Amino acid sequence: MTAPVRGRPRDPDADRAILQAALDLFIERGVEGSSIEQIAKRAGVGKPTVYRRWGTKEELIAAAMETLVAEEVGWASPEAIETRSPHVLVEAAIDSAAAATAAPHYRALVARVYGSAVSHPELMTVYWDRYILPRRVQATRLLERARELGTVAADTDLDVTIDMMVGAITYRVLQPNPPDVDEMRRYLREVYRQTGLLPAG
Amino acid sequence: MTAPVRGRPRDPDADRAILQAALDLFIERGVEGSSIEQIAKRAGVGKPTVYRRWGTKEELIAAAMETLVAEEVGWASPEAIETRSPHVLVEAAIDSAAAATAAPHYRALVARVYGSAVSHPELMTVYWDRYILPRRVQATRLLERARELGTVAADTDLDVTIDMMVGAITYRVLQPNPPDVDEMRRYLREVYRQTGLLPAG
Repeated sequence: MTAPVRGRPRDPDADRAILQAALDLFIERGVEGSSIEQIAKRAGVGKPTVYRRWGTKEELIAAAMETLVAEEVGWASPEAIETRSPHVLVEAAIDSAAAATAAPHYRALVARVYGSAVSHPELMTVYWDRYILPRRVQATRLLERARELGTVAADTDLDVTIDMMVGAITYRVLQPNPPDVDEMRRYLREVYRQTGLLPAG
Repeated sequence: MTAPVRGRPRDPDADRAILQAALDLFIERGVEGSSIEQIAKRAGVGKPTVYRRWGTKEELIAAAMETLVAEEVGWASPEAIETRSPHVLVEAAIDSAAAATAAPHYRALVARVYGSAVSHPELMTVYWDRYILPRRVQATRLLERARELGTVAADTDLDVTIDMMVGAITYRVLQPNPPDVDEMRRYLREVYRQTGLLPAG
């Protein structure tokens, strides 16, 4: 939702309809099945309304993905990361993270994003630069705090740790027999425990 | 390569051509773009020759994927796992694992497999049951040995640990700026270090 305003003032209802249409079409049909024209049609707006806000379909789909991920996963604020215990922050986020990642549309979204990473690399690049990297900065700060407190080892490469957490969760939801929300809560707890973001035992 | 022989004796050359055609087509076009008919045509054989060996296209594509993964990644034998140090075994496998996972066709294969996990779940199910689960049994034994030796914590859920390793590597190759083989060697080393399969520091 942080894309620059292009030209005229925004219409929040149209924006919301466009983002929802983009998310639905992308999940149903992938990048190649989601043109700006089809997204505009499904949202009930003209193509110029879409182009006024988003320059390319990759920018639009990335913004649409972010509405699902950012609204449903409860991230800790930068201020909270600097002042509160990592264990407390992670514990507080487990329920919403489990609900978000166990949802069928999350699985479908992960499959589409990973599935397009090689055939349509622009989408991953836009999403990565605009939305993932800022979150990785936050996650790195959280892990640095845990490292200061001694629950993460001093010489740990935190970029790899973040990949291990995100990689495990996204891999798990694509496996046969994906977890329900209770199983996902247990799973996340174990992932965070193994990285030192929750206490052992 | 362990699919049951159906009907007549196998022709190894035809089998190899069929598996290569299936792998290439799947990487190029995904599950929906890879019919048995198209695979047979590209391999220069008749459809009955394919059906004599593989009952469904999912079974065939899973077998084709395995030829790439199993031949290029040097897995430790069950006997070696029981008798040698996990650190030594993992160290010995790093170079071939780095070469295999840094290859462009590995990235393309991961994207296709993950991309089809929700839209065509049969492929993931066949591949999982026939090829991944046996390897996870081996990986679990390796981690159990490391746990006995004290480099993996006693209460670790090893299924989650395996997901963190595989998840990190497959996620990393789908990110923008995928690693070359030197960077991948360093990356794998850090993943294995964080799980206790290589010594710290």
